[in-house]
Amino acid sequence: MTEDSITRKLRRRAPLIGDDCAVIQPPAGQDLLFTADLSIEGVHFTRESSAEQIGARAVARSLSDIAAMGGTPLYCLVSMALAPWTDERWIDGFYRGIFKLLRKAKASVAGGDISHAGQFVCDIMICGSVAKGKALLRSGARPGDMLYVSGPLGGWKHKRVIVPRLDFGRELVGVATACMDISDGLALDLHRLCRESGVAAELDDVPLLKGATLDQALHDGEDYELLYTAPPRIKAPGMPIGRIIKGKPGAVRFQGRAVRPIGYDHARLM
Amino acid sequence: MTEDSITRKLRRRAPLIGDDCAVIQPPAGQDLLFTADLSIEGVHFTRESSAEQIGARAVARSLSDIAAMGGTPLYCLVSMALAPWTDERWIDGFYRGIFKLLRKAKASVAGGDISHAGQFVCDIMICGSVAKGKALLRSGARPGDMLYVSGPLGGWKHKRVIVPRLDFGRELVGVATACMDISDGLALDLHRLCRESGVAAELDDVPLLKGATLDQALHDGEDYELLYTAPPRIKAPGMPIGRIIKGKPGAVRFQGRAVRPIGYDHARLM
Repeated sequence: MTEDSITRKLRRRAPLIGDDCAVIQPPAGQDLLFTADLSIEGVHFTRESSAEQIGARAVARSLSDIAAMGGTPLYCLVSMALAPWTDERWIDGFYRGIFKLLRKAKASVAGGDISHAGQFVCDIMICGSVAKGKALLRSGARPGDMLYVSGPLGGWKHKRVIVPRLDFGRELVGVATACMDISDGLALDLHRLCRESGVAAELDDVPLLKGATLDQALHDGEDYELLYTAPPRIKAPGMPIGRIIKGKPGAVRFQGRAVRPIGYDHARLM
Repeated sequence: MTEDSITRKLRRRAPLIGDDCAVIQPPAGQDLLFTADLSIEGVHFTRESSAEQIGARAVARSLSDIAAMGGTPLYCLVSMALAPWTDERWIDGFYRGIFKLLRKAKASVAGGDISHAGQFVCDIMICGSVAKGKALLRSGARPGDMLYVSGPLGGWKHKRVIVPRLDFGRELVGVATACMDISDGLALDLHRLCRESGVAAELDDVPLLKGATLDQALHDGEDYELLYTAPPRIKAPGMPIGRIIKGKPGAVRFQGRAVRPIGYDHARLM
């Protein structure tokens, strides 16, 4: 197994691969979206999951970021550091998981890099597009807006498959005033949305995944539902969970009590 | 040090950071270029190098890919898995190296990801642009073309600083029939260029870095000079090293003797 033999195999499914860079024609009248997400053995997954699940989850995290902007994914770069235990069969399964999700999303692999490390590390970059000036930002929430999520929360332990909310995100264009995906837990991510918008939030209720606790919904990571705001007079899809209020930027309360912005933070867990 | 505190510090120098995705207006009348390159502790660098050198080298590798297409870099995503030994001061130095090179290239940091691993891993994605249809590909070399390099070769041991050949690459647009950068050694990379073009190559002579051997020039990695072809009637810049001939696609000879396509291959070195 050489870098060239892996690349040769990939090119059958990803004809854009093969030069120093992928060459791409940008879609007319659109803004471009860029996001990158790491998936690391022992941090984001364990070897108990199948290679296909690990690949699908890795790409789902980046697709979820595109969904959170109301965008459509177009191209994907896959950089991976192979571990001593990742053999050809495992790599085939990993890519199968990636291609499966990308096919559903109508996006394609355009390149990446291959190297090696002591543990498996992969970085998935996705380039997407959204109608010019229409991207859903974190910074647009205003006092009085209603606060919603696209589905029940409770963290990764209660969810085997991440379904990036791409259709849902596109529906929110022109409806939501602010939007982001919940990847590090509702408490930390809502804090971030409020800080960017210069507002505070009051939570009334949080819909929970079966078997999940409120604490998991607030402070666990990997939900990948959308968190968004819309003016009260607008009919928005999803589940209302509270409202945006004036207050210290980033402050979050649940039924009147302060919620600390604690979630899954990679730099702090070192 | 938290993910948010690192991000906050970065945003002062990279205002595009802060949402789920960076939102970017594509340049009009241009094709986009995408490339990603991993830099891994113990593989691409050791801790003996300074943080700034490591950051500069990481971003130089991707800039070199943009140069090889005749392109101009625009945006950069930096994903990094911090190691137990990378403290805030080291990270500051690492980013200093990245920003220094990007500033020279007039490109900016638009996003990325932060996590942690047993060794430091970073992935640099760069998006660049090139005039529509004008990207320099690997596949355009034709028998009779002259073969050139942009500077002397001999591998990373003889070169402390990588200078991505961006101006040189842009000069080759409309001149070169094929182009790539030499990252894994002349023998392997010329083999790749010839395979993509369906041709063979005959090397006459190879300009060497001071102190470097021919063997290092052929089989060592990390030169980051450009390797390109141009019709004999066209005056091309750089150093002529041989010519493109008909033959088994990918076959390379040096002064009449076959050269094996052996260089730095990450998957094989595992």
